[in-house]
Amino acid sequence: MNLPVHVPHLFPVCENQLRIGGQSLTELSKRIGGTPFYAYDSGMIGRRVAELRQAMPADIHLHYAIKANPMPALVGLMAGLVDGFDLASAGELRVALETAMPPARISFTGPGKGDDELRAAANAGIVVNLESEQEMQRLARIAAASGLRTKVLLRINPDFELKSSGMKMGGGPKPFGVDAERVPAMLTRLRELPLEFLGFHIFSGSQSLKAEAIKEAQRSTLDLARRLARHAPTPIRLLNLGGGFGIPYFPGDQRLDLSAIGEHLASLMPAARRDFPEAEFVIELGRYLVGEAGVYVSRVLDRKVSRGQVFLITDGGLHQHLAASGNFGQVLRKNYPLLVGNRVACDAVCNATVVGRLCTPLDVLGDNMPVGHAQIGDLIVVLQSGAYGLTASPTAFLGHPAPAEVLV
Amino acid sequence: MNLPVHVPHLFPVCENQLRIGGQSLTELSKRIGGTPFYAYDSGMIGRRVAELRQAMPADIHLHYAIKANPMPALVGLMAGLVDGFDLASAGELRVALETAMPPARISFTGPGKGDDELRAAANAGIVVNLESEQEMQRLARIAAASGLRTKVLLRINPDFELKSSGMKMGGGPKPFGVDAERVPAMLTRLRELPLEFLGFHIFSGSQSLKAEAIKEAQRSTLDLARRLARHAPTPIRLLNLGGGFGIPYFPGDQRLDLSAIGEHLASLMPAARRDFPEAEFVIELGRYLVGEAGVYVSRVLDRKVSRGQVFLITDGGLHQHLAASGNFGQVLRKNYPLLVGNRVACDAVCNATVVGRLCTPLDVLGDNMPVGHAQIGDLIVVLQSGAYGLTASPTAFLGHPAPAEVLV
Repeated sequence: MNLPVHVPHLFPVCENQLRIGGQSLTELSKRIGGTPFYAYDSGMIGRRVAELRQAMPADIHLHYAIKANPMPALVGLMAGLVDGFDLASAGELRVALETAMPPARISFTGPGKGDDELRAAANAGIVVNLESEQEMQRLARIAAASGLRTKVLLRINPDFELKSSGMKMGGGPKPFGVDAERVPAMLTRLRELPLEFLGFHIFSGSQSLKAEAIKEAQRSTLDLARRLARHAPTPIRLLNLGGGFGIPYFPGDQRLDLSAIGEHLASLMPAARRDFPEAEFVIELGRYLVGEAGVYVSRVLDRKVSRGQVFLITDGGLHQHLAASGNFGQVLRKNYPLLVGNRVACDAVCNATVVGRLCTPLDVLGDNMPVGHAQIGDLIVVLQSGAYGLTASPTAFLGHPAPAEVLV
Repeated sequence: MNLPVHVPHLFPVCENQLRIGGQSLTELSKRIGGTPFYAYDSGMIGRRVAELRQAMPADIHLHYAIKANPMPALVGLMAGLVDGFDLASAGELRVALETAMPPARISFTGPGKGDDELRAAANAGIVVNLESEQEMQRLARIAAASGLRTKVLLRINPDFELKSSGMKMGGGPKPFGVDAERVPAMLTRLRELPLEFLGFHIFSGSQSLKAEAIKEAQRSTLDLARRLARHAPTPIRLLNLGGGFGIPYFPGDQRLDLSAIGEHLASLMPAARRDFPEAEFVIELGRYLVGEAGVYVSRVLDRKVSRGQVFLITDGGLHQHLAASGNFGQVLRKNYPLLVGNRVACDAVCNATVVGRLCTPLDVLGDNMPVGHAQIGDLIVVLQSGAYGLTASPTAFLGHPAPAEVLV
């Protein structure tokens, strides 16, 4: 079978068709009313959360970072699966408040929160992760004006980084959080403000596939929290240890060893519980929970052979899946895994370049991939598309309608 | 004065404030009701078109490629300035039809046109630039079903490329257009179809700053058109020579020598008029007409010093200006020109990194730029933002409201 070798069989294949949420891709496409679309498999998301619960110590809370995928139905599903949400804007707050998640279990992170956003957060009674002294002063003013005492975490820019991560979010000079060495002074000022200190948010990076790196970051995070807690006005009640769990995208990527991380964290917890007896420990994940559960599906509109090379031109494109085009943080473009979803295996392998419908050479969904057997009308599936897919894409570019999004 | 040296003074500076469309940036920001926003200077667009008219032979028609900036008011302005539009989707067609531009002067290009789009184009009476034989057959079926005889150009994938261009759109295997060597056979089939052949659309690349490369491409384009025209069913009535005129973005970029291109084209025209006596000659430009006339303005929400580095955190970000973050076709990130628009010059130069409000290390608008004198509340202006700005950005990413857009 000609399947992308680097991707485990996340979705079953039946009668040579990919099945998403128990439906063949052709059925699903008909039900949705056509292509292009994103589909997210709710069963797979549930299984992913269950795997995490199984692997991690029982008292570790799981939070979902909504920015990975803010589709309202998906966030609603998550409200029943995880212990809290992290959000990044007043817009995400509105989505979160429409779910059953209690506001006290929602926190708001982001280096550039507007006054309107701080006000919305204070009024909603959620936790604000403070990114600077100036933001602390603004929040205190806003909360006091409404007679509120807002709960806060200090977001720390640690003095270490998550090694081998796709995105470094800590270590060295950063726009995120408060440099660890400035935290004691900030905590002194915080005592005088009408804010309720809960603890720390320490996020060192994301999209790491190395268990060793995550283990080291978690150990360093707990150590840093211990050092900083000495300056805290009250015992730590909430400690967000960050996330950083990656998913495999590209050939050669190895799946993260979840049990190694879980066992290591379990070995750290007795001392952590002793040192932070009142604390709730949180791991915050976005991509890891939903990234593999999503597919982006477009239809082949044209199949051209130009000077010996086969091109499949689909009704999708980078305007709907920027990351797959390699224009979202990749330095050198690598192919996302993709396949012909309604005709998965073929007898004779032949390569093709899959492009979108846009008039730009940037609009490549798959460069020279083994999908050359696809014909006009066939369905091209980009896997690993459940996180940083649709909302991370310039949907208005060239004026095409937005794709459908379904949770199945 | 501490101004970005590589950018000519496109906008006047008065009392240390940038003026856009005759208004100081502070006034403009007040009028709009806050930041972030895009502003486009209509006077500058008019002057750019006039410069082009002056430099090019009088019978060269100018078309505007709407995809560069589809803001309806701007497209409306363009309808009075240029001779035609090129568009890339049914969405852009709706915008174009709301202007005074006659449908016969509008053409539709794009490698993945849907049946619905071909139908809309046929019904509107615009010209369709055919990208493949299969598309030609589909359009013929659709037009015939409505009793229409749609005007078409053949879009050619030339056997040469625009050298030194930012985006190569021709030469070698490409998803765009019909390989030049396959055109004779396609023209034979076209004779039998209920389509009205007008001529060729030959687009070899975009964003070139080398007059020599554009001159060579125009010469090659006319030569290719001559070879292909021998196979045409009727005399050529429309010849779209493409565009490719670039604008300077980065340090070291030299401004395109327009007069050199114009003089060279004038030298080619006598033979071209002789060989194509019934043809209208078109140059199609997007970025070159509007790119320099636009600015993206955000406000400093926080100013942080992290481990010796100054960060300006603005209420904008990559979700509203992806290209400035380096995530739209750049391999190695380079800074767009930017400045403090309400405090342009300063006595003591100090560098800062300008970031957006998003929680991702990708969200950098300017890395280590001489804008460290900016304070909270100041206005950061990203220049060269009139093309491929807002619509080429993932505005839904992290759920912030869309920025305002004004034509002044």
